[in-house]
Amino acid sequence: MNCHDLDFNISRLGRCRIPSPLSGVRFVRNDERVLYPSDASAIEACVAEGKPLPAFEAAGPREQIYFDPSKLKCGIVTCGGLCPGLNDVIRAIVLSLFHHYGVATVFGFRYGYEGLTHRHGHRPLELTPRAVADLHQKGGTLLGSSRGPQDVSEMVDTLERMNVGILFAIGGDGTLRGAQAVTEEIGRRNLKIAVIGIPKTIDNDISNVQNSFGFETAVSEARTAVYSANAEAEGARNGIGLVKLMGRESGFIAAYASLAHSEVNFCLVPEVPFTLDGLLAALKRRIESRGHAVIVVAEGAGQDLVERPRETDASGNVRLGDIGIFLRDMIPARLKNLGMDVTLKYIDPSYTIRSMPANAHDSVFCLLLGHHAVHAGMTGRTNMLVGFWKNEFTHVPIPLAAFERKRIDPEGRLWSNVLASTGQPKEMM
Amino acid sequence: MNCHDLDFNISRLGRCRIPSPLSGVRFVRNDERVLYPSDASAIEACVAEGKPLPAFEAAGPREQIYFDPSKLKCGIVTCGGLCPGLNDVIRAIVLSLFHHYGVATVFGFRYGYEGLTHRHGHRPLELTPRAVADLHQKGGTLLGSSRGPQDVSEMVDTLERMNVGILFAIGGDGTLRGAQAVTEEIGRRNLKIAVIGIPKTIDNDISNVQNSFGFETAVSEARTAVYSANAEAEGARNGIGLVKLMGRESGFIAAYASLAHSEVNFCLVPEVPFTLDGLLAALKRRIESRGHAVIVVAEGAGQDLVERPRETDASGNVRLGDIGIFLRDMIPARLKNLGMDVTLKYIDPSYTIRSMPANAHDSVFCLLLGHHAVHAGMTGRTNMLVGFWKNEFTHVPIPLAAFERKRIDPEGRLWSNVLASTGQPKEMM
Amino acid sequence: MNCHDLDFNISRLGRCRIPSPLSGVRFVRNDERVLYPSDASAIEACVAEGKPLPAFEAAGPREQIYFDPSKLKCGIVTCGGLCPGLNDVIRAIVLSLFHHYGVATVFGFRYGYEGLTHRHGHRPLELTPRAVADLHQKGGTLLGSSRGPQDVSEMVDTLERMNVGILFAIGGDGTLRGAQAVTEEIGRRNLKIAVIGIPKTIDNDISNVQNSFGFETAVSEARTAVYSANAEAEGARNGIGLVKLMGRESGFIAAYASLAHSEVNFCLVPEVPFTLDGLLAALKRRIESRGHAVIVVAEGAGQDLVERPRETDASGNVRLGDIGIFLRDMIPARLKNLGMDVTLKYIDPSYTIRSMPANAHDSVFCLLLGHHAVHAGMTGRTNMLVGFWKNEFTHVPIPLAAFERKRIDPEGRLWSNVLASTGQPKEMM
Amino acid sequence: MNCHDLDFNISRLGRCRIPSPLSGVRFVRNDERVLYPSDASAIEACVAEGKPLPAFEAAGPREQIYFDPSKLKCGIVTCGGLCPGLNDVIRAIVLSLFHHYGVATVFGFRYGYEGLTHRHGHRPLELTPRAVADLHQKGGTLLGSSRGPQDVSEMVDTLERMNVGILFAIGGDGTLRGAQAVTEEIGRRNLKIAVIGIPKTIDNDISNVQNSFGFETAVSEARTAVYSANAEAEGARNGIGLVKLMGRESGFIAAYASLAHSEVNFCLVPEVPFTLDGLLAALKRRIESRGHAVIVVAEGAGQDLVERPRETDASGNVRLGDIGIFLRDMIPARLKNLGMDVTLKYIDPSYTIRSMPANAHDSVFCLLLGHHAVHAGMTGRTNMLVGFWKNEFTHVPIPLAAFERKRIDPEGRLWSNVLASTGQPKEMM
Repeated sequence: MNCHDLDFNISRLGRCRIPSPLSGVRFVRNDERVLYPSDASAIEACVAEGKPLPAFEAAGPREQIYFDPSKLKCGIVTCGGLCPGLNDVIRAIVLSLFHHYGVATVFGFRYGYEGLTHRHGHRPLELTPRAVADLHQKGGTLLGSSRGPQDVSEMVDTLERMNVGILFAIGGDGTLRGAQAVTEEIGRRNLKIAVIGIPKTIDNDISNVQNSFGFETAVSEARTAVYSANAEAEGARNGIGLVKLMGRESGFIAAYASLAHSEVNFCLVPEVPFTLDGLLAALKRRIESRGHAVIVVAEGAGQDLVERPRETDASGNVRLGDIGIFLRDMIPARLKNLGMDVTLKYIDPSYTIRSMPANAHDSVFCLLLGHHAVHAGMTGRTNMLVGFWKNEFTHVPIPLAAFERKRIDPEGRLWSNVLASTGQPKEMM
Repeated sequence: MNCHDLDFNISRLGRCRIPSPLSGVRFVRNDERVLYPSDASAIEACVAEGKPLPAFEAAGPREQIYFDPSKLKCGIVTCGGLCPGLNDVIRAIVLSLFHHYGVATVFGFRYGYEGLTHRHGHRPLELTPRAVADLHQKGGTLLGSSRGPQDVSEMVDTLERMNVGILFAIGGDGTLRGAQAVTEEIGRRNLKIAVIGIPKTIDNDISNVQNSFGFETAVSEARTAVYSANAEAEGARNGIGLVKLMGRESGFIAAYASLAHSEVNFCLVPEVPFTLDGLLAALKRRIESRGHAVIVVAEGAGQDLVERPRETDASGNVRLGDIGIFLRDMIPARLKNLGMDVTLKYIDPSYTIRSMPANAHDSVFCLLLGHHAVHAGMTGRTNMLVGFWKNEFTHVPIPLAAFERKRIDPEGRLWSNVLASTGQPKEMM
Repeated sequence: MNCHDLDFNISRLGRCRIPSPLSGVRFVRNDERVLYPSDASAIEACVAEGKPLPAFEAAGPREQIYFDPSKLKCGIVTCGGLCPGLNDVIRAIVLSLFHHYGVATVFGFRYGYEGLTHRHGHRPLELTPRAVADLHQKGGTLLGSSRGPQDVSEMVDTLERMNVGILFAIGGDGTLRGAQAVTEEIGRRNLKIAVIGIPKTIDNDISNVQNSFGFETAVSEARTAVYSANAEAEGARNGIGLVKLMGRESGFIAAYASLAHSEVNFCLVPEVPFTLDGLLAALKRRIESRGHAVIVVAEGAGQDLVERPRETDASGNVRLGDIGIFLRDMIPARLKNLGMDVTLKYIDPSYTIRSMPANAHDSVFCLLLGHHAVHAGMTGRTNMLVGFWKNEFTHVPIPLAAFERKRIDPEGRLWSNVLASTGQPKEMM
Repeated sequence: MNCHDLDFNISRLGRCRIPSPLSGVRFVRNDERVLYPSDASAIEACVAEGKPLPAFEAAGPREQIYFDPSKLKCGIVTCGGLCPGLNDVIRAIVLSLFHHYGVATVFGFRYGYEGLTHRHGHRPLELTPRAVADLHQKGGTLLGSSRGPQDVSEMVDTLERMNVGILFAIGGDGTLRGAQAVTEEIGRRNLKIAVIGIPKTIDNDISNVQNSFGFETAVSEARTAVYSANAEAEGARNGIGLVKLMGRESGFIAAYASLAHSEVNFCLVPEVPFTLDGLLAALKRRIESRGHAVIVVAEGAGQDLVERPRETDASGNVRLGDIGIFLRDMIPARLKNLGMDVTLKYIDPSYTIRSMPANAHDSVFCLLLGHHAVHAGMTGRTNMLVGFWKNEFTHVPIPLAAFERKRIDPEGRLWSNVLASTGQPKEMM
C-alpha cells in the first residue's frame, strides 16, 4: 500500500532536474503523503507494530520537472464507455500543458487504443487551446473511444515514431492494464516515455480511488429516472416503479441514487444476494401498507436469477443477463398469482446517465485531475494514475488500482445507510 | 366545424342568469369566435360560397354564469397515462373555483374513472387551496390514474349522490369519449351536471386542438435523450445513436425532438412508411460520409416491419410491436452483412419524458387551461373541452375532438421542416 | 397590413428564375397568405365592407429562386443585447445556405454593425458548417454584438466590396431600422443585395410578430428567480420577495413569469400605472392575511415614481430610473411607518435570463427562423423580416415591425389572465 | 482537537442503557474515531512526541440509546439565511425519528429562535411523516427562519414546558453559539434535554467541518451566473463579465465557482488582498491579449477599497461595503482613463444561489446528516454538531466549530488550484 515505495519514475537517476516554469503555485514536496486509513485505531496498530504508515504520495506541481517543455510532445487517449467529464479532462490536460508548462504539441489519438495502432489508420487530432476552448460544455468525448486491447508493440511504435514524451490514458481497469503493458514495453525499449492514467469508471469501482470523475453527474441523472419511477408508482393503484441502473459488479450508482431520491423502497445491488421470493414477500408487504413502491436495481444484481448469455463483449466482460426485464416481467405475474394486481412501469435510462456534460462538482474535479495528471507526467513519473483519497489528489501505482474492483461492503457504512433510507429488509432470501 | 352551432350548454333555456363574482377581468362575449383556418384563401372561398366562417367559440370568463357558487360542488378526475402538467391543471382548477368564484368543495376522484364507481371503493380527496399549494412543482398526478372505461350509470350515480355540479375530466380521447357517455346519461336523467374535458395527450394528437399541455416539456426531455444518443454516436467509430420515443399513431414528439436537437439524421414516424432496406441504404451512405448517425423512431413507426402481439391494453389500444428493439438488433446485423461494422447505442427514455414537472411554458398553459375550464363550467356549458387554436383558448365540442387523431401530414409544413433539418430522403422504400 | 401589397423584392422584373436545388420539401406558393386577425367578426366586417383580408405573405421555400447559389456570398450580423438562441439562428442560416442551397461562403461580421464598417477594423469570421457545428449548445453570440447605428454608406461599401448578396441582420427595432437604411442605400446604388431581418427582442415587443425567439427561455430563467423570491418570502416572517425583470416598455417577461410561477402576488409592468400608496395598501392587506408576498416588477414599470437619469445609452434608449432599488428601499421603510415590520429580499437576475442556451422550444423556433430567412433571401426578397403569426412563419415588411412597439393591452386577455392569477387589484392608484 | 476527550453527553453516569430499536444497520462503537490530519508526517510527529492522535468521534447509530423513544418529543429549529437542503435535513430528521426509533412527536419551531420564545407567539408545526413527504423537493425552509439571538431562559422554558427531549438546531456559527448557551442553561437547570447542531453555512466556513450541506448546490447555481458573465464578456468588444457571489469572510463559493467554470480570469476573495491598481493592470493586460475577461468577486473581498456603512445586521454581522457595485463603476471609468473602452456587464445572483432545492449530492448529504443527528441525539449526546471529515460523518463539540471561521489559506492547495486555473497573478498589489 505504500505507493512511495514503488518505483514509478522513468528516470531513476538524475531525475527532475529542470526547474518548473509554473509560478505562484504551491509546490508539493516529494515526501508529502496522504494517509490511507481514516480510522485512528488502524494507525495506532501500525505504530504499535512498528510498521510504516500506509499512505499515498501526494499529487501536485513539483519544483523540479523531468521533461523539457519546449521539446515535449504529448498524447491523450480515451478508452471504454462514455463518462461525464471526459471532455473536461481532455481540455484540462491540454490547457495545463500549454499554459502551465508551455507545451505546444498535444495529439488526440482517436477511438481509444485503436488510434495508437497503425492498422486502423485513424489520424490523431491536433489539440490546441483554441480547439478545446468550449469542450467542457459537451458530453461524450471529442476523441472518440473504443473497447478492448490492441497490439502493445504497435502502440509503442506509434509513440516512438511521433516522438511522444507523455501519454495520458483515460479509462477503466482494462485501459489501465493496457497502460501498464505499454509502460513495460517502453521499459524494454529503454524509451523516455511516461504513461499517466486517469481513472474513468461510471461505476466508481476502481480500487484505492475514493471518487472517480463523472460519478456524481451520473447519480444526478439516475435520480431523475428514479423521480419518474416514483411519479409513475404514485400515479397508479398498486403502482410499482422499477429502474435499472448501471453497475456490473458494484452497485454504487444504485446505492447513491437510492439515497439521492429517498423515495426508493428497494435497492438491489450485485454485492447483496436476494431471491425472487424474498423480494416479492417484502414488496407485497410494502404495497399492502403504502399502495405503491419504487425499486432500483443495478444491472449486475441478481445474476443467479436470470439466464445469462455465454458471450463476452469487446472488453472481455461477460455479458449479463437482463435483470431489469426479468423483474419487469416476473413481478406483476408472480404478484398476480399471490392475488395482487399491480401496475409496473419500467425505466431503463441506460446511456443517458453517462453522456451528459459534467455537473459543477465534476467540472472542478476533472479540471484538477487534468492538472494533476500533467504535473505528475512532467516529473517523469510513469505507470501511475491520479487518484483521490480523503479529499486529496494522490499518485497511485497502476497495479494497486487496476486489478481488483472496489465494491460495496454489505456490512459497511454505505450499505447501512441505504438500508436505513429504504427500510428494506437486510435479508431478502 | 362551427362549434357555436352545437348545443353544449346544460340549460338551453334561461341559462347563465347569475352575475359572475369575478372582478377586474375582461369578460368574453358569447359571440366571440376564433377562426379555424389561418389561410386567407380558405376564408375567401368560404365567403365566395356564402358559407359561414369556420370558427370555435372563444373561451374565457363570462359576465353571467349558470351555477350558484355558494352551493356548487365540483369533481376532478385524471385518466390515462401521466403527462407533464397534470398537477398544474388540478391546482389551477381548484384555485380558480375557490378564489375566482368562491366554490369551497372540490372532490378529487382517485385513479381515473375507477374513482367514480362504487365497486372500486376509492375515497375521493378533498381538494382545498392548502392541499394543492405546492402541487405544480411535482410531476405525476396527485389523484392517481387508470386506463379504460367504467360503468357509466355507476359513475353518474356517484356524481348524483355526491351532488357534483361540474365534473372536470382530464384525459385523452378515450377519456373524452367516456365524458361524452357520462354527459348523455346525465341528459337522460335530466340532471344539472356539466362535464368539461381538458385534453391530455403526450402525443399532441387530439383533433382540433393545436397544442396540448405537457407536450413541450416532453419534447424537452426527449431532446435530452437525443443529446445522449448523439454523444454516443460521435464517441465511437461508425457510431449510431438510436432513440425510441412515444408516439403510437402520431409522430409529433419524434418530429419536434428532431428539430429541437438538429443533429438527428433520420426521423421515423408512423405517418411515413419506410422499408428496412430503404433505411439501411440511406444510413450506410450517411455513415460512409460522416462517420456516425443519429436515428429517432416513434414507437408506432414501421409497424409493418415488426411482429405484433395480438393483444390490446386496458384502454383497448392494440399493443405495438417493438420497433426500437427491432432496429437495435437488425441495423448492426444487416450493416455487417453489407460490410460495415457499426457500434449502435439504444436509448429508450420511456416514461421519463412524461413524469417530469411542467416547464415554464407548460405551467402557464396549464394554469390558463384550468382557469378556462372553470370559466366554461360555471356557465353551464357541457360535453365540451377547452382547446387552443392560433394562440387562443377555445371551446370545442367533444365529438369534434375525440373521434379522430391529429397526425403529421407527410406533405405538410412540419414534415417538410423535418426533412430539411435531418436531410433524410423523402422516400426510404 | 397587407404585406403582399408591399414590394420587397430586389428585382421587380424577371425575378426568381432559377429553380431551387432543394428537394423533397413542400414549396410555398407566392400567393399563400396567413390571416392577420383570429377573430371571426373582424373578418366578416372586412368582407361586408369589401376590403381585402388583412394577411401576411407565408414564409417557406419557393420553387424559383433569384440568386445563383454557386456564386452567392452571404453575411450575418448580430446586434444589440444577447438573447437565447442567437447562436442557433446563426448556425441554422449557415447550415441551410450550405446544405439546402450549396452556398459555400458565409461571412460572420463581428460586433454588430461595427463589423460592417471600415473604421473599426474587425475582420469577419468565415462561417463553415464545421465552425458552427456545436454552436447551438452555447449561449451568447459567436459573432459578438454592439449597440447603435453606424455609417450606412460605409456599411454598403463593405457589402459591395465583399460581394455579399444577402445580408442577414439579427436584431431589435434599432437594428431593423438600420437594415432598412441599408436597403435604401442599396436601392440608390442599384445593387443586387437583399437584406433579411430576423427580429430579436428579449422583451417580445416587436409589432406584427407574435413570438420572438429566446422569449420562452428567458421566461423560464425568470421563473427561477421568482422561485427564489418565493422561497425567501415564505422563509421569513412577513417576508417579501421582490424580483426585477427585463422589460423597458413592454412587460411581457414579467407577465409570463408571473403566470409561470403562479405564486406571484403583484406584477408591475410599464403598461399599467400604479402609485406607491396604492401598491403599499394592497401589499399590506396581502401580508396581513397570508404572511408573505412575492412581487415581480418590470424594469420599465413605475418610471413616474423614480428619478430618472437624463442620459441615453448607445442605442439611443433613455436610461431608466431603477424601480427595483426604489421598491427595495421604500417598501420596508414605508410599511414600517405603517406599523409593519417586513423582511424584503431583492433579486435582480439581470443578464442571466438572456445569456443561456435556447430551450427545446426556442431551438426548434430558431432553426426554422434561420431556414425561413434563408428561403426568403434566396428569392431576392429584401427589406423584410421573418415573423411568426398564429403558428405560421410569415414575411413582414420591416416598416410594419420596426416603428412601433408591441405592448400589453391592459384591457386584453393576457393582462386579464395575470390579474386572475395574481389576485392583485386592477387599480393600485 | 480530541473530540472524544470532551464530555458532551447529557448523562455522565449510566448513559445509553436502552437498546436501539434499529435493526439491520451497522452499529458504530463508541471508540471509533476519524483521524484529523490526512498528512502522514503529522501523524508520525504525534507518535514521536507520544501525543494522542488528533481525531473526531465517529458518527452513526449506537447499540445503546439514552432516550425512550415511546416517550420522547423532539423539536427542530432553522436559523439564519436559507441554504439548499434545509428542507431535506428537516425531513430526514422527522423520518429517522419516526421510522428508525418510533418517535411520534416532532415540533417544528417557526422562524428561528423566535419560535422558541413566548413573546413572538409563533405556534410550532406538528411534523409528521406525511407533512414532510415531499418537502425535499422544495427550496427554502418549511419552518421559516430569522436572525439573531433570543432570550436563552425563555427558550429553555419553552423546551421544558413542551417536554422536548432533543432539540435539533440547524444554523450557522451564531446559531451554534445560541445552541451552546441553551445547553448551558439546560445544565444549570439539570434538565435531560439534548441539543444537537447541524451546521448550515452557504459559505462552507465552519471550522472542523470539511463540507457543509448546500454548498455544492450553491456553487452549481453560481456557475450559472459565471456562464452568463462569460457569454456577455465574449459577446462584446473588450467585454467584461463581473459576478458578485456570497462570501463575507471566506471566499469558498467564489473559488469553487471559478474552478467549476474555468473561463474565470480573476477570482477575488476576502482572504487575499488586492489593490484596484493591481487588478486594473492585470485586467488591462488580459483584455489586450484576449479581448474579454471574466471576474468573480466574493462580497467580502476588497473591503479596504470601499466605504463601509457603520451598521450591523440582526445577526450582529458588520454590514459590508458593496465591492460589486464599486468594481462595476470603477473598472470602466478607470480603464477609460487608461485609454481602453470596455463594456462591463454586472451580475449579482444574490439569493438565487441559496434558495434552490438541493442537488443530488446535497440530497444524499442532507439525508445522512439528518440521520446521524438523530442517532447522536438518541444517545443523549449534547452540545455537539454533526460534522463531515475525510468522507466520514463525525461528532464535533460545538466549541470546536463555532468560534473561528474556516478560511481559504492563500498558501494552500485550493488557492494554488485557483491561481493555476485563472492564470491571475498571485499578487495584485
